Amino acid sequence: MFAKNCWYVVAHAHEIDDALFARTLLNQAVILWRTTGGRVVALEDRCPHRLVPLSTGRTVNGQVECGYHGLRFDADGACAFVPGQSKVPKAARVKTYPVAERHALIWIWMGVADLADENLIPDLHWLDAPGWQATTGYLHFNCDYRLINDNLLDLSHETYIHKHTIGNDAVADSPAVTEVIGNRVVRVHREMPNIEPPPLFAQAQGNNGRINRWQIAIYMAPGFNMTEVGFHPVGTDRTTNHLMMRPIHIITPETEHSSHYIWGLARNFRLDDDGLNDGMFSSVTHTFEEDREILELQDQRLKAENMPNIPQSAVKTDKGPVAGRRLLEEMIRGETDDPTQCAVPIPLADDQQVTMPFTQAAQ
Amino acid sequence: MFAKNCWYVVAHAHEIDDALFARTLLNQAVILWRTTGGRVVALEDRCPHRLVPLSTGRTVNGQVECGYHGLRFDADGACAFVPGQSKVPKAARVKTYPVAERHALIWIWMGVADLADENLIPDLHWLDAPGWQATTGYLHFNCDYRLINDNLLDLSHETYIHKHTIGNDAVADSPAVTEVIGNRVVRVHREMPNIEPPPLFAQAQGNNGRINRWQIAIYMAPGFNMTEVGFHPVGTDRTTNHLMMRPIHIITPETEHSSHYIWGLARNFRLDDDGLNDGMFSSVTHTFEEDREILELQDQRLKAENMPNIPQSAVKTDKGPVAGRRLLEEMIRGETDDPTQCAVPIPLADDQQVTMPFTQAAQ
Amino acid sequence: MFAKNCWYVVAHAHEIDDALFARTLLNQAVILWRTTGGRVVALEDRCPHRLVPLSTGRTVNGQVECGYHGLRFDADGACAFVPGQSKVPKAARVKTYPVAERHALIWIWMGVADLADENLIPDLHWLDAPGWQATTGYLHFNCDYRLINDNLLDLSHETYIHKHTIGNDAVADSPAVTEVIGNRVVRVHREMPNIEPPPLFAQAQGNNGRINRWQIAIYMAPGFNMTEVGFHPVGTDRTTNHLMMRPIHIITPETEHSSHYIWGLARNFRLDDDGLNDGMFSSVTHTFEEDREILELQDQRLKAENMPNIPQSAVKTDKGPVAGRRLLEEMIRGETDDPTQCAVPIPLADDQQVTMPFTQAAQ
Repeated sequence: MFAKNCWYVVAHAHEIDDALFARTLLNQAVILWRTTGGRVVALEDRCPHRLVPLSTGRTVNGQVECGYHGLRFDADGACAFVPGQSKVPKAARVKTYPVAERHALIWIWMGVADLADENLIPDLHWLDAPGWQATTGYLHFNCDYRLINDNLLDLSHETYIHKHTIGNDAVADSPAVTEVIGNRVVRVHREMPNIEPPPLFAQAQGNNGRINRWQIAIYMAPGFNMTEVGFHPVGTDRTTNHLMMRPIHIITPETEHSSHYIWGLARNFRLDDDGLNDGMFSSVTHTFEEDREILELQDQRLKAENMPNIPQSAVKTDKGPVAGRRLLEEMIRGETDDPTQCAVPIPLADDQQVTMPFTQAAQ
Repeated sequence: MFAKNCWYVVAHAHEIDDALFARTLLNQAVILWRTTGGRVVALEDRCPHRLVPLSTGRTVNGQVECGYHGLRFDADGACAFVPGQSKVPKAARVKTYPVAERHALIWIWMGVADLADENLIPDLHWLDAPGWQATTGYLHFNCDYRLINDNLLDLSHETYIHKHTIGNDAVADSPAVTEVIGNRVVRVHREMPNIEPPPLFAQAQGNNGRINRWQIAIYMAPGFNMTEVGFHPVGTDRTTNHLMMRPIHIITPETEHSSHYIWGLARNFRLDDDGLNDGMFSSVTHTFEEDREILELQDQRLKAENMPNIPQSAVKTDKGPVAGRRLLEEMIRGETDDPTQCAVPIPLADDQQVTMPFTQAAQ
Repeated sequence: MFAKNCWYVVAHAHEIDDALFARTLLNQAVILWRTTGGRVVALEDRCPHRLVPLSTGRTVNGQVECGYHGLRFDADGACAFVPGQSKVPKAARVKTYPVAERHALIWIWMGVADLADENLIPDLHWLDAPGWQATTGYLHFNCDYRLINDNLLDLSHETYIHKHTIGNDAVADSPAVTEVIGNRVVRVHREMPNIEPPPLFAQAQGNNGRINRWQIAIYMAPGFNMTEVGFHPVGTDRTTNHLMMRPIHIITPETEHSSHYIWGLARNFRLDDDGLNDGMFSSVTHTFEEDREILELQDQRLKAENMPNIPQSAVKTDKGPVAGRRLLEEMIRGETDDPTQCAVPIPLADDQQVTMPFTQAAQ
């Protein structure tokens, strides 16, 4: 049910320091910490002595010490010290996981360790590249990670779930163009010309004047989502007058029915405005919690019905989520058929050009 | 385990208005609301698109709008609107349930819809007939509905569970006569001549003078109970001096181990005394919560023992509950053998005559 | 999984009076109370009528009355009274358990009743013998009882779990000698000569002077543990200058994954110092709750892995717990092979002599 041979995000980089950080990913309990050199390492959160979580303990000189009997393990998972004895048992090893740090994120490889190539890390440079500023956060959702991807690929839900902030009728009413890129990315582009601004957009431009709005939902399997969100006042030139943001939504499975939602809202304007960060943090948190409420209910119902396929009755806006699920299934099938197969990331967006209205007829 | 071809009560009629009302009955999640014409309708609480509960949404012009992507369904369960598209998918249908409104109650038919005949609705006119006034309420019990029926058919428990209000030794000490009426009703009649009044009875008559008390527990399968409760001061004429009430206890299964307890305490005196309603509401709620506590414990133990038959050791007062269970089982077996079979209700009590002491020897 | 033909402790004797006391032991729900003569009796907590817990009721004249319909049962489990009828059903019997009162504890025999011989009660006289004073308490642990025994047989954990009170590096660093006595007892003796006193020891002696400390962990299957804890200032004579205590830890299984921890901290000094009792009560409770936290985590992980054997990788200090488990398994196998077999207790310690440093090389 999970793709394994790919990098997953564990946490924002600033969350990991020399103390133990515990998180379950793809049903596996893991601890992470920074060694004395600052490198992030990951071990299974399980002492091979009496199976107590190592996260009961602490780090000592860059090693982890179990909280029960004090056995220590180094960054390679080898037992380094047993209290009261000079020899350490060689069999007492802890499983390690390849880890990388990039784009202000900590990445982990849960599949075949030999295949862990840092060139396979998706490009999410908006979280730390010069010229960009990202407000970041974390939420825990008690639902299947795929439901969150589905939700992000059909933004018509904004009209209903987020009607007090970023949604109004224009979102659901406007057609979207769905495109599959390579074997890993789906892109759903919606233009909303000459519409009333939803509440948060009115607030952003300081008035209720009509806007040309666009949004692009981009999904890369298994759980990377970026939503390009842009608008400009009606009658102005999009290239010079738009305001644009790129929320990054990283969905990492915790278990079959719970997920980590690691997010960063990247912008390329007012980079040093800390007050703006604070406002965005609470808006985004509030908005994603609206999603959480409905997705957790959906998960409970699907579980009760033994996980039937969705949608059961398809509508036009299902095109994106259905395509996304297909890519994810192919990715999982690919590594099932060939355990050495790893999916290659695809660039999600181009920083050099402003998104323009599509000319082709909306599908 | 549940009878299906019969009317169940969902709620008091005043609880349903044009907003969505969600309740699970016989393991099926249902929503109800009043259409613009005031008619109550019921659909399965499940959007056929992505299986989110429709109760996440709201009603719009007498239709229900899903809270996720805004699909709308009419009172017949047909999809009436999909945002952003002109055609609606015919396959997107929601299951409907026959509904009726009678006796200030909303009734639903969970079985074969074609068989839903309003003539099969039990007569509970005491809840809204002229000359009667009913204090009403609702409680949720985490137990098998049959345990509540059992409890109401053996009122000797009042001596133990309700000793501070309606029970005293006289209840358990007095013999009862059990009668089976037709294939659906059990009636247990107990006379308690010349006894001390239990606390609430003393309060009702304003003194501690001895009373002649009677009670009749009437059960109609699957979950309709009426308890006729009456008394008059010793030495007075029953016909002219009695005080009588008819608590109606409607037990509708939610799941195998949880139940809706929809009640109305009907009286034919002091009809306009609102203060009396308030007092009765809190007395009855308190009393039924005493039952709830013990029945929920009983359910947990029975579940832990894999639902053995009860009673394991029978006593005299088990006659009523045992007869009631037998009728319920016959009703369920009847519709299993013949899926078109529906049980016909039987009148529970006659308003024209006052219950008199039985002359036959108590069994 | 549980030994049955042996005495288990239910509670401290002062906890049982003429009111009902309910506790589950080895998955069996039991009630206990004192009859009018003061004798403690135990019945299954299950009314044979409708399977409601008898603990819903109360005692009446030394009998138990069910809280639902008032059936009464005597100390032999026979039905003594049914309300409203003169004959009682002979079949309505409640299972009884042999009970004994000794060492200020209430003991119960959950196995074959005919084998319940009070000579088989372990000697825990420190809880009420002249010359001893015991501070006592009770804790509930949500874990397999064997994990608590394991914990008490490898006290090197004090260094890690109890570092703020009774542990310091000296505990885990010092070697221990493990000895098996007969077929039921394991004894782990550790000497810690010339060490800094851990916080509570420094407090006990009123200064930070170095001490000679010793501890003996004694385990008798299935769940009796005594920890002899002693020390004396370096340079003084152990026989005349030591301070010694004997914490008794009685671990009785409630279910496979929950346990009763009935404890008494026995001392043979300052017998009448009630303030000392209070201080010890809170220190011990705090310390055992530190154990509880880690053992409950361990239990969750073992359960998730379907109860693998522990230790998976053994270290030196596992010698005690491994020996303890072996004795327990032999005890259980013994009574499986021969259902009349009962394990005979072995004395845990000798009050006549002070523990001296061992001369043999520590293993």
